[in-house]
Amino acid sequence: MIAEIIAIGTEITTGSTLNTNSKYISNKLSDFGIETHYHTSVDDDPKRLENVVNIALDRADLIITTGGLGPTQDDITKEVISKSLGLKLEKDDKMEEDIKNIFSNMSRVMTDSNKKQAEKPKGSKFIENEIGTAPGVFINTKGKTIIMLPGPPWEMSLMFEQGVSQLINNDTSIITKSINIVGIGESDLENRLLSLNLNRDNINITTFAGQGSIEIKIIGKGNSKEKANIEVEVDEIVKTIEENFKCYIYGYDNISIEESVVKLLKLKNYKLGLAESCTGGLISSKITSIPGASSVFDRGIVSYSNLSKMELLNVKKASLDKHGAVSEEVAYEMAKGLLGKSDSLDIVLSITGIAGPDGATEDKPIGLVYMCVMTKKNYEVIKFNFNGDRRLIQKRATLRALNEIRKSLLR
Amino acid sequence: MIAEIIAIGTEITTGSTLNTNSKYISNKLSDFGIETHYHTSVDDDPKRLENVVNIALDRADLIITTGGLGPTQDDITKEVISKSLGLKLEKDDKMEEDIKNIFSNMSRVMTDSNKKQAEKPKGSKFIENEIGTAPGVFINTKGKTIIMLPGPPWEMSLMFEQGVSQLINNDTSIITKSINIVGIGESDLENRLLSLNLNRDNINITTFAGQGSIEIKIIGKGNSKEKANIEVEVDEIVKTIEENFKCYIYGYDNISIEESVVKLLKLKNYKLGLAESCTGGLISSKITSIPGASSVFDRGIVSYSNLSKMELLNVKKASLDKHGAVSEEVAYEMAKGLLGKSDSLDIVLSITGIAGPDGATEDKPIGLVYMCVMTKKNYEVIKFNFNGDRRLIQKRATLRALNEIRKSLLR
Repeated sequence: MIAEIIAIGTEITTGSTLNTNSKYISNKLSDFGIETHYHTSVDDDPKRLENVVNIALDRADLIITTGGLGPTQDDITKEVISKSLGLKLEKDDKMEEDIKNIFSNMSRVMTDSNKKQAEKPKGSKFIENEIGTAPGVFINTKGKTIIMLPGPPWEMSLMFEQGVSQLINNDTSIITKSINIVGIGESDLENRLLSLNLNRDNINITTFAGQGSIEIKIIGKGNSKEKANIEVEVDEIVKTIEENFKCYIYGYDNISIEESVVKLLKLKNYKLGLAESCTGGLISSKITSIPGASSVFDRGIVSYSNLSKMELLNVKKASLDKHGAVSEEVAYEMAKGLLGKSDSLDIVLSITGIAGPDGATEDKPIGLVYMCVMTKKNYEVIKFNFNGDRRLIQKRATLRALNEIRKSLLR
Repeated sequence: MIAEIIAIGTEITTGSTLNTNSKYISNKLSDFGIETHYHTSVDDDPKRLENVVNIALDRADLIITTGGLGPTQDDITKEVISKSLGLKLEKDDKMEEDIKNIFSNMSRVMTDSNKKQAEKPKGSKFIENEIGTAPGVFINTKGKTIIMLPGPPWEMSLMFEQGVSQLINNDTSIITKSINIVGIGESDLENRLLSLNLNRDNINITTFAGQGSIEIKIIGKGNSKEKANIEVEVDEIVKTIEENFKCYIYGYDNISIEESVVKLLKLKNYKLGLAESCTGGLISSKITSIPGASSVFDRGIVSYSNLSKMELLNVKKASLDKHGAVSEEVAYEMAKGLLGKSDSLDIVLSITGIAGPDGATEDKPIGLVYMCVMTKKNYEVIKFNFNGDRRLIQKRATLRALNEIRKSLLR
């Protein structure tokens, strides 16, 4: 079964409202094993909507629309779709009564324009809307299923959960697993995945790139009898990926890397300290965005000036003069200074680099970054070269810094 | 001129990624007076993409695609569109060299699959991508304009600003002015704007709410002859708004508040220091996201634990015991400790609060925040109650903290 989602409203095509409904619905459909091939948004114009609906009837089996069910002149969804399907609109007396009651409950008077909300195409069913005046509509005709839902996301999602799910659930079972990766390029990863020959019938493996991280998504599909087998196959694929990319995996099912670091710190009962220069507090702010971070994060120093590196972290003036602030030596001294200054810390990370656009020299380009991870037992200094503008370099460096902390905690 | 935006990627149609690109682009196009009638999203399937492109060529003059320009097998946008337009793909030697350089700068090897990123349809132009390996493509053929941009929003938007805007601007003159506001609610602002009677023919005034800030957008529209008159009218409206909302305006044309703070610090030749608790480094990371921040930002302390407040900022144990970490007294002592510890600082801000979800008490609810802004001459402690989840409280507190620094610098 192939689905198309149509979002109707001028506010969407002009860019004034972000359409989140189509993502929500196709996400839900994929849980039922229904593939969405198309999302379309169109403005409140009857001709263009008719054109869009006819195209969808031609290429999809299930069409779900959002928007255009309200009482105003712009709301034309039911009229246009009925026309495309060759169905007449009929008034439903019970629904008219229900809508009248909603208005009287709100101490408001039902206007004539609200009356059209009680109409539905011949042979269709209403889908109840508990929190708004616009009911949804379900039609099954000529081998096609058409579902019309209102535009407000909170009404739409509640109706989807309560009314729509049962109407469209079919026999297909879907097993989904996500593996989150950092520290390897997307094309490199993809080539290595291809060489592992993981593809099976009914199992699809795809990669999605974020800002420095990658999601590997494994989707298995089959009918209810095949479900157990597919689960085993998906598990086997996950295992093979784990064996081959162990050091790059930081989590599963879209956990964030900072969340996985906070979890590991809690597990080890470790307190983290940070000494940031080029990332300017971004690593600290990622860690402290996680609820409960206060039990594992003790302090951060944003030592932006050379003076602050000396005053707050005991970095030697001689090291700054000889090697410069962006150097292996200074990264080491920053970490040592922070760890040495407080008994409460178990692990620290320091970071110094050139985020640009200024500050580069002939032998130190923009994107050069040194990190030092240090515990009471050992330390490691790592050198990176990042690409991008200032903010992107800071973001990529932050992701890799969190990953270095994670790797050190796993040792 | 009618536009259609096409977002390409299985991650969008399966509902795993939210498509924000189409909204961004149609918003920008409407500034140029170009109407977007359709948004389409389609998965990475060559046949379906071809079908979608052919429909768009039939009903729109300007087609902008996002996604599918990367190096992997799934990336098929250039191939499919070239086929639809009957154009051959040609390798561009200079672009191949450029991409090779990006890889060598990152100390990574360019794979064969990356080479296809250097291809473009015959007669088209590349659009430079400063922060990624996938360049965009601009084609003008048979009365249609087709622009292909990469999928990652940060790459797409930068390329739109820097390369695409000039390519598609048409005869309509658009005068746009944005006024950026903080510290007043949207409906309050809107009512007060309405009572000023600012609406004119051809001039549209709208407000857009961000996370704690609001943009007032004034858009004047007309042909090239009317341009001068419209400019005068827009200027008059801006002046009236300035007179009425002076203390809430932090900038124009979507300057960020951190940018305006860095500018003011430079102007006064002041060095800033920060002592953050509940915002966990977010204020520092905002300031240091601005190029050239190093000339005005000296240091930040993320004093997350009570111990770190005492060790790094000389907060008294008695104050913590008596008033708690989230109190007027501790905010004051944090600022005093930071300012007193270094001669290099001219202005400091401290912040302590409860971001939640834990940590609230009967008289100290989630969202309670104290800030202290201090210079060598004076100080002020301000109390706030923010609304929202942990991350939203941190963001809103950060915005207001930056605004307090700004207000203090204006005194």
